Amino acid sequence: MAATKTYLTGVKPTGEPHLGNYLGALKPALEAARDYDAYYFIADYHALTTVRDPEVMRHNIRSVAATWLACGLDPERTVLYRQSAIPETFELAWVLSCVTGKGLMNRSHAYKAVRDRNAEAGVADLDSGVNMGLFNYPILMAVDILIMETDLVPVGRDQAQHVEYAADIAGSFNHLFGEGYALTVPKGVYPEGDASVLPGIDGRKMSKSYDNHIPLFLPENKLKKLVRRIPTDSVPVEEPKDPDSSVVFQLLTQFASAEQAADVRKRLEAGGMGWGELKNELFEAINTEVAPKRERYEQLMEPGSELDDVLAAGAVRARERSRRVLSGVRTAIGID
Amino acid sequence: MAATKTYLTGVKPTGEPHLGNYLGALKPALEAARDYDAYYFIADYHALTTVRDPEVMRHNIRSVAATWLACGLDPERTVLYRQSAIPETFELAWVLSCVTGKGLMNRSHAYKAVRDRNAEAGVADLDSGVNMGLFNYPILMAVDILIMETDLVPVGRDQAQHVEYAADIAGSFNHLFGEGYALTVPKGVYPEGDASVLPGIDGRKMSKSYDNHIPLFLPENKLKKLVRRIPTDSVPVEEPKDPDSSVVFQLLTQFASAEQAADVRKRLEAGGMGWGELKNELFEAINTEVAPKRERYEQLMEPGSELDDVLAAGAVRARERSRRVLSGVRTAIGID
Repeated sequence: MAATKTYLTGVKPTGEPHLGNYLGALKPALEAARDYDAYYFIADYHALTTVRDPEVMRHNIRSVAATWLACGLDPERTVLYRQSAIPETFELAWVLSCVTGKGLMNRSHAYKAVRDRNAEAGVADLDSGVNMGLFNYPILMAVDILIMETDLVPVGRDQAQHVEYAADIAGSFNHLFGEGYALTVPKGVYPEGDASVLPGIDGRKMSKSYDNHIPLFLPENKLKKLVRRIPTDSVPVEEPKDPDSSVVFQLLTQFASAEQAADVRKRLEAGGMGWGELKNELFEAINTEVAPKRERYEQLMEPGSELDDVLAAGAVRARERSRRVLSGVRTAIGID
Repeated sequence: MAATKTYLTGVKPTGEPHLGNYLGALKPALEAARDYDAYYFIADYHALTTVRDPEVMRHNIRSVAATWLACGLDPERTVLYRQSAIPETFELAWVLSCVTGKGLMNRSHAYKAVRDRNAEAGVADLDSGVNMGLFNYPILMAVDILIMETDLVPVGRDQAQHVEYAADIAGSFNHLFGEGYALTVPKGVYPEGDASVLPGIDGRKMSKSYDNHIPLFLPENKLKKLVRRIPTDSVPVEEPKDPDSSVVFQLLTQFASAEQAADVRKRLEAGGMGWGELKNELFEAINTEVAPKRERYEQLMEPGSELDDVLAAGAVRARERSRRVLSGVRTAIGID
């Protein structure tokens, strides 16, 4: 029987998740975890390229862990850990820097995006505002993957480059030092269809950068208010409405059962159902899904909750791998 | 009473030292160590940017340590360790990447030298042959210094940039996170005069890149042969000679006592002393200085010598500092 494949995913702790993250990333990742030997990490050292406030950093790290656990991650099955709990990561990052051409980093999407923004803004130094954390980002990302002997990494199409780079860098190392030790070469797993695109309250893709998002763990009363604020047209209650042009209905289809969605569609098309009533149904559907998770999240965020023990236990398990990989690498390069 | 200042120096294990390294770097560093709280490290992970053979790497690492010990480093007084024994180094390197502008690296002398060579050779991609280890080099160099709470770093004028960068990067960190923890800002210590320039056998500065060097621990018979091969003019034995235009005499002044040098100068100027006799005196002067060190070096290079224990003990002492520094840094950034 083939060994179970290792499946790794990470989240950068830069803020609270929203419903789009929940449906597009969190939920599918938690479902996938059931079929694999799954490793989930909180990429706290990646967040350092932008997060400069230690209190915000501490809060965000706990928040990501609490979110995963509240959404159903089973820490007995899935190894949950902080990137910063794996010191081997940073040593391997140096080793892999030495086998990675600078040209690869020059072509990184994230770096090029900053240069393009500088060019558009007429900034003469295209590297303005680029710190070396950002420039080295793809290497650290590759190490996160390679140090856990990862086979599969779930990625959105716009992040495929990260896994390609990890595979490239592993290939370079294996070419130079593979006689002594070979890194596992990872593959990306891409989402099917466009299930991951949830509209925000203005109808565009839900995203913090558009400020159109619904935070996953918004308190109940605030959630109700936010749903009420979703813009609708002025078609009166009694008249027929087009469900497919309604953001509220689109959101409802993601949280209600198929039966409920079909029933609401009929009632909208027939006339007699107003936007207010539709919004109430949407609020109830979201809240039904979210409320028990929100409660659990709030428990976990309390100081002294089991969160810290879960992360500490995860780090012990993750380091079994990272130590093994780094030890193999050190022997191969002659620094042992 | 002021605390003793911390003095740090490192050597990249990329090959055997020569007499120029001995007089210009090793000997002054060992003398300086007596006045300070001295930390000496073998920069094995720096060597990885170019050394790709694990056996060569292992040999070179031991060779640097054995050289220092053979030349008189007292491991009770001076902390001798391998860079690779300090895992905190690599984690701090990531932290400092995040506070270091890419522009600083773009201006690094070592990186610019490669680009210039590419430009001269007509290579279109100026980053050709640049790996990310080379590009990140100044950051790792800064970390080596900062992680030992270093006050003073002895540097040749051509390496002043490294200490300036370390001070700059420490300044950036302290500016952003200094409320939580402040890194010690280092200063460079520059050599006085030009005592460090020893001529090679062709009269130019002794350097491996000119292939004009005399290896420090060359076996006695080979040393004798190499000294005999130093080019001289064809002035006959009995005629007066100009000591100041003789490379052999210049080398002699570095190894003989002042009295002996003055005596030889007189005999050359008077006529009657041939180049062969001068070369014999040079060989004897070098060998008198080097022979006991060479013997000790060879003992230390034997497998199972006390070398490994010395390095292990040094690592324990060095990590007292690196752990303290990293712990302060982690608290300051909120990753603790």
